[in-house]
Amino acid sequence: MSSWKDPQHSLRYGEHSDAAGGVHAHRFDTNLSNQVIGATGLNAHPRLASIMPNLIKHLHDFMRESKITSAELMAAFDLLAWAGKMTDDKRHEVLLVGDVFGLEPLADDITYTLAADGSTIPTVLGPFWRANAPIRNMGDSIVFGIECGGHTYMHGHIVDAQTREPIENAELDIWETAPNGKYEQQDPDQVDMNLRGRFRTGADGSYNLYCLRPTTYAIPQDGPAGKLLQLLDRHPMRPAHIHCIVTAAGYKRLTTELFDRQDEHVHNDAVFAVKEDLIVDFLPRTGDPKAQFDLEYTFKLARLNPQS
Amino acid sequence: MSSWKDPQHSLRYGEHSDAAGGVHAHRFDTNLSNQVIGATGLNAHPRLASIMPNLIKHLHDFMRESKITSAELMAAFDLLAWAGKMTDDKRHEVLLVGDVFGLEPLADDITYTLAADGSTIPTVLGPFWRANAPIRNMGDSIVFGIECGGHTYMHGHIVDAQTREPIENAELDIWETAPNGKYEQQDPDQVDMNLRGRFRTGADGSYNLYCLRPTTYAIPQDGPAGKLLQLLDRHPMRPAHIHCIVTAAGYKRLTTELFDRQDEHVHNDAVFAVKEDLIVDFLPRTGDPKAQFDLEYTFKLARLNPQS
Repeated sequence: MSSWKDPQHSLRYGEHSDAAGGVHAHRFDTNLSNQVIGATGLNAHPRLASIMPNLIKHLHDFMRESKITSAELMAAFDLLAWAGKMTDDKRHEVLLVGDVFGLEPLADDITYTLAADGSTIPTVLGPFWRANAPIRNMGDSIVFGIECGGHTYMHGHIVDAQTREPIENAELDIWETAPNGKYEQQDPDQVDMNLRGRFRTGADGSYNLYCLRPTTYAIPQDGPAGKLLQLLDRHPMRPAHIHCIVTAAGYKRLTTELFDRQDEHVHNDAVFAVKEDLIVDFLPRTGDPKAQFDLEYTFKLARLNPQS
Repeated sequence: MSSWKDPQHSLRYGEHSDAAGGVHAHRFDTNLSNQVIGATGLNAHPRLASIMPNLIKHLHDFMRESKITSAELMAAFDLLAWAGKMTDDKRHEVLLVGDVFGLEPLADDITYTLAADGSTIPTVLGPFWRANAPIRNMGDSIVFGIECGGHTYMHGHIVDAQTREPIENAELDIWETAPNGKYEQQDPDQVDMNLRGRFRTGADGSYNLYCLRPTTYAIPQDGPAGKLLQLLDRHPMRPAHIHCIVTAAGYKRLTTELFDRQDEHVHNDAVFAVKEDLIVDFLPRTGDPKAQFDLEYTFKLARLNPQS
């Protein structure tokens, strides 16, 4: 057993600072919180040990203040178990449940604010990224077997956030849904790895490819995330977006999405992932038989070890 | 979108009441919390809608205050997905992860305090209860194929918490580990449903059966709950206990455990489930070739609809 103390939290359990600034006693067993916090040993993982007092404080205070009963806790555990069972390498349902509560965009904001490195702002990964998408040649299309929809020429540069110099051999990994709102792994009518691709920059740091102007879609309704949205009387729609992960040796990985300004849900995203800097315009493109729209976007990557 | 407001929480996001009673601004995006809370629709499940503002406040405040990064959040999601995958009808690993944080005993305390009905105090179900244990005759043993260990004659009454009158046709469902610390579903050397049984009272509300004096054991180390204990440098031991669920028509279900006062972990339980009223004495038993110990315990059940 440990004598580990958290210097950040001078309130003892059994006391509670209320909205008016007063201190009153908790109604329910508070010694339990001290027992759980005090159980952390001296050789614990330092980061986990450092967050435990605050995690226990908030979890337990939530339960006490909202009077969570055993039956309600069990319902929550069962919902999480259901999410875990649905999670595989094609869909992370636990993450999607977290997104219903806005956890992923909040962590993104914390990470980005702490870094303060001038990179493109990140947003949620979402549950449908797949590792090892095909590496395609610059100028290729990621669209296979789809005639409808707004074909788009997407192009721009990947640059150093500090120097704005182009980054050679950076990788842009992009993925999006078909016009029916389905990612390829959700849709037996699409070929494997459709609407996914990885592109690597040359010396000038530029990229260009053909994709689709994205489509608004509902997040999956067949699991616990959908069940929660239904119980909360919330809509499941995500504004149209293209997912991007941008990586380069010596730079931090950037996970983000680009959102279509014209989408009706662009300021009403079921998972709260839209940031103003990620809203883009799909402009009309003329003289290109392969695309009706043009999208230009520059990705800024931050160095892992900034130059002073 | 909803105009749903929580009257209980007068703090706006962006403000935070600190330990000294002061109010300061949060460093990280607080508008997100308002977006998530505001998304709850007017036709939401009433109880879920009522707890959402406080749940979001505590989850988000924890993340902001402890500066939880995207990578750390993802590690938590992956751990929960692992727990979900291990959960089945023989083991609830998500519940066990919650027990590492003391959630189940806290919910039990809240439920019991709110009820204030004089019943025997409940404690955690644990992950190893199985539905449909065999119904046995009063006086039977639940021990099969085990010669060692402290065989125990367990007996007592099941009574109405208010009137103390015996309850006829009440059911006592009990389960425990073998002396090797394993429940039958964890141990291929035990017969199916060993050390489990359901017993139904007659008109006098009494019960009697043979079981084992229980054994201290480690909670499973092969999943995320064990991983968390290891990361927290905590021991995995539970004090020796017998699990009980007591039910009767017209009465609330009681889920509890009886703990051996002599166990070295009786005040140092890995999952914080011990309550003073559940600590029992195994007394020496003489003149009974089938048992070396005697355990007497009276279970008090509360009516679903108390008589006034």
